[in-house]
Amino acid sequence: MQFELTKEYLSALRQEIDLKNADFVKTQLNELYPADIADIFDKLDLEEAQFVYQILDKEEAAEVLMQMEDDAREKFLTSFSSEEIAKGVIDNLESDDAADLIADLPESVKAEVISFIEDAAQASDIVDLLNYPEDTAGGLMAKELIAVNLNWDVFKCLREMRKQAETVESVYTIYVIDDNKKLLGLLSLKRLLLAPEKAKISDLYNPDYIAVKAKQKDEEVSSIMQKYDLVVLPVVDDLNRLIGRITIDDVMDVMKEEAEKDYQLMSGISENIESSDNIMVISRARLPWLIVALFGGVVGSKVIGLYEPQIKINPEMAFFMPLIAAMGGNVGVQSSALIVQGLANNSLSKGGILPKLLKELSVGLFNGVICSVLLLSYNLIFNDSLALSLTVSIALVSVIIFAAIFGTFVPLVLNKYKVDPALATGPFITTSNDIIGLFIYFMIGRVMYGLL
Amino acid sequence: MQFELTKEYLSALRQEIDLKNADFVKTQLNELYPADIADIFDKLDLEEAQFVYQILDKEEAAEVLMQMEDDAREKFLTSFSSEEIAKGVIDNLESDDAADLIADLPESVKAEVISFIEDAAQASDIVDLLNYPEDTAGGLMAKELIAVNLNWDVFKCLREMRKQAETVESVYTIYVIDDNKKLLGLLSLKRLLLAPEKAKISDLYNPDYIAVKAKQKDEEVSSIMQKYDLVVLPVVDDLNRLIGRITIDDVMDVMKEEAEKDYQLMSGISENIESSDNIMVISRARLPWLIVALFGGVVGSKVIGLYEPQIKINPEMAFFMPLIAAMGGNVGVQSSALIVQGLANNSLSKGGILPKLLKELSVGLFNGVICSVLLLSYNLIFNDSLALSLTVSIALVSVIIFAAIFGTFVPLVLNKYKVDPALATGPFITTSNDIIGLFIYFMIGRVMYGLL
Repeated sequence: MQFELTKEYLSALRQEIDLKNADFVKTQLNELYPADIADIFDKLDLEEAQFVYQILDKEEAAEVLMQMEDDAREKFLTSFSSEEIAKGVIDNLESDDAADLIADLPESVKAEVISFIEDAAQASDIVDLLNYPEDTAGGLMAKELIAVNLNWDVFKCLREMRKQAETVESVYTIYVIDDNKKLLGLLSLKRLLLAPEKAKISDLYNPDYIAVKAKQKDEEVSSIMQKYDLVVLPVVDDLNRLIGRITIDDVMDVMKEEAEKDYQLMSGISENIESSDNIMVISRARLPWLIVALFGGVVGSKVIGLYEPQIKINPEMAFFMPLIAAMGGNVGVQSSALIVQGLANNSLSKGGILPKLLKELSVGLFNGVICSVLLLSYNLIFNDSLALSLTVSIALVSVIIFAAIFGTFVPLVLNKYKVDPALATGPFITTSNDIIGLFIYFMIGRVMYGLL
Repeated sequence: MQFELTKEYLSALRQEIDLKNADFVKTQLNELYPADIADIFDKLDLEEAQFVYQILDKEEAAEVLMQMEDDAREKFLTSFSSEEIAKGVIDNLESDDAADLIADLPESVKAEVISFIEDAAQASDIVDLLNYPEDTAGGLMAKELIAVNLNWDVFKCLREMRKQAETVESVYTIYVIDDNKKLLGLLSLKRLLLAPEKAKISDLYNPDYIAVKAKQKDEEVSSIMQKYDLVVLPVVDDLNRLIGRITIDDVMDVMKEEAEKDYQLMSGISENIESSDNIMVISRARLPWLIVALFGGVVGSKVIGLYEPQIKINPEMAFFMPLIAAMGGNVGVQSSALIVQGLANNSLSKGGILPKLLKELSVGLFNGVICSVLLLSYNLIFNDSLALSLTVSIALVSVIIFAAIFGTFVPLVLNKYKVDPALATGPFITTSNDIIGLFIYFMIGRVMYGLL
């Protein structure tokens, strides 16, 4: 039932495309959904894509275009004239997709494309939408929606809806407004279906509703839709007039981007990139963190340099430096990841920083003691130096506890000062822990070798 | 418009709860949505929660319960008798929520609760649903849906829907079935609204639909709904009979869990935990990775031990060990994170492992050379040892390139053998890179110090 694009399928199809066998290609693609056809388009070269695009029904073709990968679509669209984009593509899109597509066009083409849009209402909707920043409710919303007046009855409502419904792809909710377009509430299709024709909308609608303002951030929109399990969310202006609606599929993209951003920040990647991006883009996104780590490593080398005479006498101390650094780094990342994630889904119970630090302290103490005892047993059996064995284990438990507290503290503080706490994870935490861990290690080493 | 639970609000409300001021509490909560009331419940103690629960309307109370945090709900439910759960809660839930709630109850209570359910059809639905593993389409689906027969006309369809609609909370799609309950297609409410009463369903419905089998994995369900932008997805049995439907809100939870799992694996946390879990749970989830890192550190210490005589003569070599290890670790995590993410959203263009390795090799070479040149300049200015300066920089570029390739290779291979590639990120990659990085470093050091 689900389509999977195999190498064999693709090469058979390309063969027919190259033979310009329109009938065969049409029959094949007729069985597929736009999202599947888009997968195929992503793999075709420009000439092939153009040929297939002409075969498709206009509305489906526009849908396919929207489902393609951004890079592939941008490249493909360069072969379209402004008029073709306006009349062939934009015409067949809902306003939010149309605005997104136009926003991605080169500056020089945008105005031209808009001037070619024939439907004046659609052009005005799109120009409106282009004014909202991409990462706000206004940037996510579409203009198409079904709104009915409070004073209508069911009969008039159904008649008006029939008119409006033509431009709206899927109807989830009917919005009830007053004469000034102010949003008053919601009417479910179910309620409408069950009501007699003479019933007044004012007696049927539900005045409880959740809406967002156009300027609210996309993350806020996403968390509201998730919290209240909404499939569609109305957008209002400052006078509470209904200006659009956001559907869940757009918000899922926001969710995904957020999760990817946090994931990449933890792995030391500073921009949202994909493995398919080119080498320079990938290198540039990764280099800043490597330079942070490099700088940290140089500072670390200075710390170790302070203890050069001791290393000369007790070179075995060098053996466990990487272990101490690595354990500190790992514990720090574990602690900060939990906090970052808790902040991201609001699941962090409130109550100040102190209880969280105490909890991490306990976890650190517990895991630190277990690891230290394991390491001590190993060293007592396989190493003859008691001083080294004790140094390493005492340093390990100290470093783990320090890292646990540090890893908890930093994201919480960043968050308090409105900096993205995810910045704390990854290279930043590991590098700081490396330096401080080594410092702790050598201090304890100096004491232990002095004593024993 | 959106409610935010402040400390002040909560303490004022608790005061009235403790005074048993039912009217005040009722008026306050009437203005809130179940998700907001659930936030309040999460913070109340057992006695307070019981008092508030009685005040709420039954249907709303059940909804609040479902929106509470798992731990808080489980604790709260222990104060309910089996009969109260069946008649007060389960009665007011859709079948999927009801089954989830019963699945979380202690084994000893489950059967008893089911026996108290009065509606035989609901009891049978729930027992059915409990048979499906939690992480399959069957485990996600609900039984409530609107299905109409192919042979009906619009009038009969609307009449039958009025009956069915009472048990279905929100109607997104109408399913068209034959006499054997086989799923034939979909009918949009919009289409139904626009059609004349005498029209036949068989002329109105859309025979193109996407469905899943009950045993398909939840990740598959999630990726299908995302790919095709679906809000609801029908579930069929092996004979293609319609047995349930999955809504997007359930799938969003799956998406979130997947993202969290990958995030936690990268940070060295082996189970899905939250920062609110107790100390033992958190410690247990984190300890295995720490022991992996500890073991790696011990192996690393052995590698360094091989070069003890050299460290004795050239203790400055020890200064840069943590730098080399940290850089290798960071690059490895960067590379593997991109691959893991690409695999997770299917955005990795196909074409075998080789092109990806070559690409990572280029990125590694580029970033490695930049970092090495920076480090060499620093060392030539601030360190007098030419041998050390060259060793560190040559080792750095080698380690970065190795780590880039290794970090790409491991998740791809794991994925090929159906192991979760996210396992490769985090402690595993950093630990392996530590060991191999140190080995490379000392080998190069031996050569350089020998030459210069």
